Amino acid sequence: MHEFELIRSIFQSSMMANTQGRNDILLGIGDDCAQVKVPDGQTLVFSMDTMVEGRHFPFDADPLDIGYRAVATCVSDLAAMGAKPAFFTLALTMPDSDPQWLAAFAEGMAELAEPIGLLLVGGDTTKGPLTITLQVHGYVEQDHTPRRSQAQVGDDIYVTGTLGDAAAAVPIVTGELQVSAERFDYFYDRFWRPSPRLIAGMALKRVAHSMLDISDGLAQDLQHITKASNVGATLQLSALPVSEELLSWKPDCAQTLALTGGDDYELCFTAPKSAREEIQLITQTLHLACARVGEITASGFDVEGYQGELSGWQHF
Amino acid sequence: MHEFELIRSIFQSSMMANTQGRNDILLGIGDDCAQVKVPDGQTLVFSMDTMVEGRHFPFDADPLDIGYRAVATCVSDLAAMGAKPAFFTLALTMPDSDPQWLAAFAEGMAELAEPIGLLLVGGDTTKGPLTITLQVHGYVEQDHTPRRSQAQVGDDIYVTGTLGDAAAAVPIVTGELQVSAERFDYFYDRFWRPSPRLIAGMALKRVAHSMLDISDGLAQDLQHITKASNVGATLQLSALPVSEELLSWKPDCAQTLALTGGDDYELCFTAPKSAREEIQLITQTLHLACARVGEITASGFDVEGYQGELSGWQHF
Repeated sequence: MHEFELIRSIFQSSMMANTQGRNDILLGIGDDCAQVKVPDGQTLVFSMDTMVEGRHFPFDADPLDIGYRAVATCVSDLAAMGAKPAFFTLALTMPDSDPQWLAAFAEGMAELAEPIGLLLVGGDTTKGPLTITLQVHGYVEQDHTPRRSQAQVGDDIYVTGTLGDAAAAVPIVTGELQVSAERFDYFYDRFWRPSPRLIAGMALKRVAHSMLDISDGLAQDLQHITKASNVGATLQLSALPVSEELLSWKPDCAQTLALTGGDDYELCFTAPKSAREEIQLITQTLHLACARVGEITASGFDVEGYQGELSGWQHF
Repeated sequence: MHEFELIRSIFQSSMMANTQGRNDILLGIGDDCAQVKVPDGQTLVFSMDTMVEGRHFPFDADPLDIGYRAVATCVSDLAAMGAKPAFFTLALTMPDSDPQWLAAFAEGMAELAEPIGLLLVGGDTTKGPLTITLQVHGYVEQDHTPRRSQAQVGDDIYVTGTLGDAAAAVPIVTGELQVSAERFDYFYDRFWRPSPRLIAGMALKRVAHSMLDISDGLAQDLQHITKASNVGATLQLSALPVSEELLSWKPDCAQTLALTGGDDYELCFTAPKSAREEIQLITQTLHLACARVGEITASGFDVEGYQGELSGWQHF
């Protein structure tokens, strides 16, 4: 497999690798390095994520879905920083160079990357078990970056959208569970097509004290905030937002899935009580559901109404 | 394996992750994203490389060596851009979380990263076959970046150091070939401890028209320059610089290894004839061997004195 030919023929020909009209990208795919001029007054934020076949997504999945989801889950980290997507790199390890697979994978990536202005500027391809590493980069003003370490006692805790669907979808996605066509379509999409909350992240960064995206489950991810901020938290299980589809399918454990299930890629953030009105205004303007689910406390981690143990989401 | 605990306990405790005294790194390991303020007047250059066990390095190799070489080979791309090393990210996929292995691997990375000011600022760890992806980032002024596409007809072609040792070392490194202890030590190091030509790259970028690092073999890599620049090249096989150790071990094929062998990570660059004196001054000041090995022509790719076929270096 010749990495140069592969990358050039398939990825470089994609619109998502077209640097025309982008003053920030001085050099894209093809040289020893890519070269970027970060816009004046902006800082660069970036996140690297690896997805291994059979662990982060099922074997023999549709490459279109894999491509879309790879970009979506990684871009979600930019949303949590309130950053504007700018460019990404791709390290692709695959068993053999399959042009059809690569074309579909690239199409899936471009489906999300193009409309949000996320440009493919470089990477590497190697032979081996299917492993996908993306590094996504965004721009944000230095002074308005919510961090995990800045939650304050008395902050409200919020989550966007609904939680639990992606975890419920896993046995459907792996083929272990047969469901109606309608249910299949809904949950298949909820696993493979998460919506990174980019606009919400950019709008909320000025009012949020701390923010992150929920990849491992609310219970586990919120503890990253409480540990980094040296505070505690109390959640109300009944306040966790779940979809009608999940509630009608699994009325008994929907809230538990919302608490412990991963892979939803919604935002969790904390903000002072004084910001309630502004947050309502922002989320209403964006037509984005946003639920107040608890409060930052001095210490401890409690979920009112929950009996089970609190452990994080394990992938396949 | 809990990625956060792994990264934090082993990598974050390393000096190479210490952001103190670094005004450019606003946020290192631990948040959704790292955050960087690129120094005024500088652009960001970066390169991503993946190394797969059994393909780019032998199975069961010393993790200290793997760590050192991973940083060295990736940093070599910064040298080819004349850039100053700044920071890097690490995506590590490994079969199981072995603290001893990780500590040695981190130590090997730090051995090179620390003295050159290359800071570890983020990454991801996942379970799977041993696969290492690094993205290294550097800073360089916008106006002085040699590119592959800017070789000009009449340019001299130069290479730094000596070539062929790393390719000759492969059967020694894999254990297929038994040699004397002295020969083993020399060639083992030549494979595992390449010297990225950072200072040379920074000094030469103002006189070089085009530059790259030799990872796949001079014959193959030089063709990246000739293709991108739409020119040809003529090399003199007898002019290719080889080490005394290689010449005394393999007098018959040393030059061929220098032409086609990969993994040496020396610089190859082209520069106008008018720059000969300046280049001599620069490389003498740096005590760096630098050989004039050919000339950029209008078209074709010839190696005077070479009979064989020209194909690139294949890894394990």
